[in-house]
Amino acid sequence: MSSTAAEAGMGEISPDLIVDAMFACRKTAAIKAAIELDLFTLIGDGGTAESLAVATNAAERGVRILCDYLVVNGFLTKTGHQYALTPSSRAFLDRHSPAYMGSAIEFLAAPEILKQVLDDPTSYVRNGGSIGLANMSPDNPVWVKFARGMGSFTGGSAVSLAAEMANLPVPPKRILDIAAGHGRFGIEMAKTFPSAEIVAVDWNSVLQLAKHNAWEFGVSERYKAIPGSAFDVDWGTDYDLILLANFLHHFDMETCAGLLGKTRASLSRDGHVVAVEFVPNDDLVSPPFAAAFSWEMLANTPKGEAYTKKDLTEMARRAGFQDARVKPLPPSPASVIFFE
Amino acid sequence: MSSTAAEAGMGEISPDLIVDAMFACRKTAAIKAAIELDLFTLIGDGGTAESLAVATNAAERGVRILCDYLVVNGFLTKTGHQYALTPSSRAFLDRHSPAYMGSAIEFLAAPEILKQVLDDPTSYVRNGGSIGLANMSPDNPVWVKFARGMGSFTGGSAVSLAAEMANLPVPPKRILDIAAGHGRFGIEMAKTFPSAEIVAVDWNSVLQLAKHNAWEFGVSERYKAIPGSAFDVDWGTDYDLILLANFLHHFDMETCAGLLGKTRASLSRDGHVVAVEFVPNDDLVSPPFAAAFSWEMLANTPKGEAYTKKDLTEMARRAGFQDARVKPLPPSPASVIFFE
Repeated sequence: MSSTAAEAGMGEISPDLIVDAMFACRKTAAIKAAIELDLFTLIGDGGTAESLAVATNAAERGVRILCDYLVVNGFLTKTGHQYALTPSSRAFLDRHSPAYMGSAIEFLAAPEILKQVLDDPTSYVRNGGSIGLANMSPDNPVWVKFARGMGSFTGGSAVSLAAEMANLPVPPKRILDIAAGHGRFGIEMAKTFPSAEIVAVDWNSVLQLAKHNAWEFGVSERYKAIPGSAFDVDWGTDYDLILLANFLHHFDMETCAGLLGKTRASLSRDGHVVAVEFVPNDDLVSPPFAAAFSWEMLANTPKGEAYTKKDLTEMARRAGFQDARVKPLPPSPASVIFFE
Repeated sequence: MSSTAAEAGMGEISPDLIVDAMFACRKTAAIKAAIELDLFTLIGDGGTAESLAVATNAAERGVRILCDYLVVNGFLTKTGHQYALTPSSRAFLDRHSPAYMGSAIEFLAAPEILKQVLDDPTSYVRNGGSIGLANMSPDNPVWVKFARGMGSFTGGSAVSLAAEMANLPVPPKRILDIAAGHGRFGIEMAKTFPSAEIVAVDWNSVLQLAKHNAWEFGVSERYKAIPGSAFDVDWGTDYDLILLANFLHHFDMETCAGLLGKTRASLSRDGHVVAVEFVPNDDLVSPPFAAAFSWEMLANTPKGEAYTKKDLTEMARRAGFQDARVKPLPPSPASVIFFE
């Protein structure tokens, strides 16, 4: 998650990591405010607290203190009174950049998510999970925030997955995208396979956004939507490719195996089921992002977690597959899983 | 705040810092849960998820995921299924350690503080400050949390300050501790000057704790408490030493100058006024903790911030002093300020 972890083994005694963790929420607050004010885009080729206060219609004092904090934490540089973007901030936080990922904050720091994560973390450790927003109500509005915000975050792995699928011996014609969210995974498939039809399953409110995105990417005439829960809905049969992108980690092994069984029963003769997941090593503490992701699921779901290759293989077998093959999708922290 | 900032200038393009900031709240949640469960103390010389689940009366799954997350973030090590403390976690998070600072989480991640920091960070940037809990009501219960939690956090600078004061040419007899909080600053003075009397000013509920701490440190017979606001209360005159520890940063320049004027008028002929503050350099972006502290004050006060040497000098002059002399108190990020 953070490079600071690397220092841990070194044995130098310092409260720095602890202080950093205790204050860490302030960093989320700062990046959220900066993104909401579109500060990174406005800085562009440079700006002062004074000019940025005018541009954001905010108090100069507030902008100055925020910008200085962003310098301390490595998101901006400062020369005299002039702030500038770091190369990484320019790539990922300037709205004009194709790799812009600022919108992810809308989901990752949504009030209902932060409430769930921070209100009583001890209780979800004690209980081994939380009630989970998504599980409290069907069609929870938080998934619209997910779909709106996280396309930029997982767009990279959607592109990588489509490139990976281009290697299939026979191009898929019918593709099912389960829990489509922003729709990017299915949409990239539609772009890669120009004669394929995409069927997207998700809550109705989310599908409106997925359909809009399909329209924006010019694939809407091949994009069909089936509203409802992936567990209950009848999505039909004869799919050449079924996608489960960032979905399995929300559920326990048994639920995942059941869902995989349902996908297996919906395949065409040479069809494939592939998932996108963060897959930790067997030690459960590496690589950092994938391993840390289980904590995210502990906070936000009743029984979800990031599954290892061993877990995924067991899941596959319970669903009637032979195996689960895992292949990383760098530079994203995600992997593609082939259920075979 | 974090060593990751050091990478910023290097120009390597990566979303890592951004992802880290967006997820940073999860780190605060984890350290809070671990401290509340007293996990670090219980790990002691080692433990497994299974043994720690029994010891904490928590779900093994929850403990395992929390511990793995703490390994990823550098607070624990893992060998096989066995978790162990890092040297820093042993020093600062094991309740048996004299440098234990876990209790700080009670204030730093108090629900009312997190709400203020996270609910709408854009609004306090826009407004150049927040309403501020402390300013919403006199005698706010959050200050009891501060006093309970932060003694361990600022205890180090209290000891350093007392050592510094031991150099005074004439040992002070009457010492005023303004906004005493946990009382540690005054108490360390009482220990250093065995014939001095300490007068502590703070809200009544906070003073109960300060008095309890004075009793624990064996100085209660020389410890007097005056309840009320530092701005309104009549604390008397003829003080040889007046302490303003971690107080000025809550207020604007004018308010600070007014308060300093009030302290100056209460001094004995050779009396001294000293403050403890986080003092950023003139660039306002170094050193990291002091510079980042202004963001904390933007979120939590209407007009507070971390003051530079230049600011403190102006404050001193407005209050009728000649100068403000700043001397760092390593290893803490605080400095002592002599108003002279």
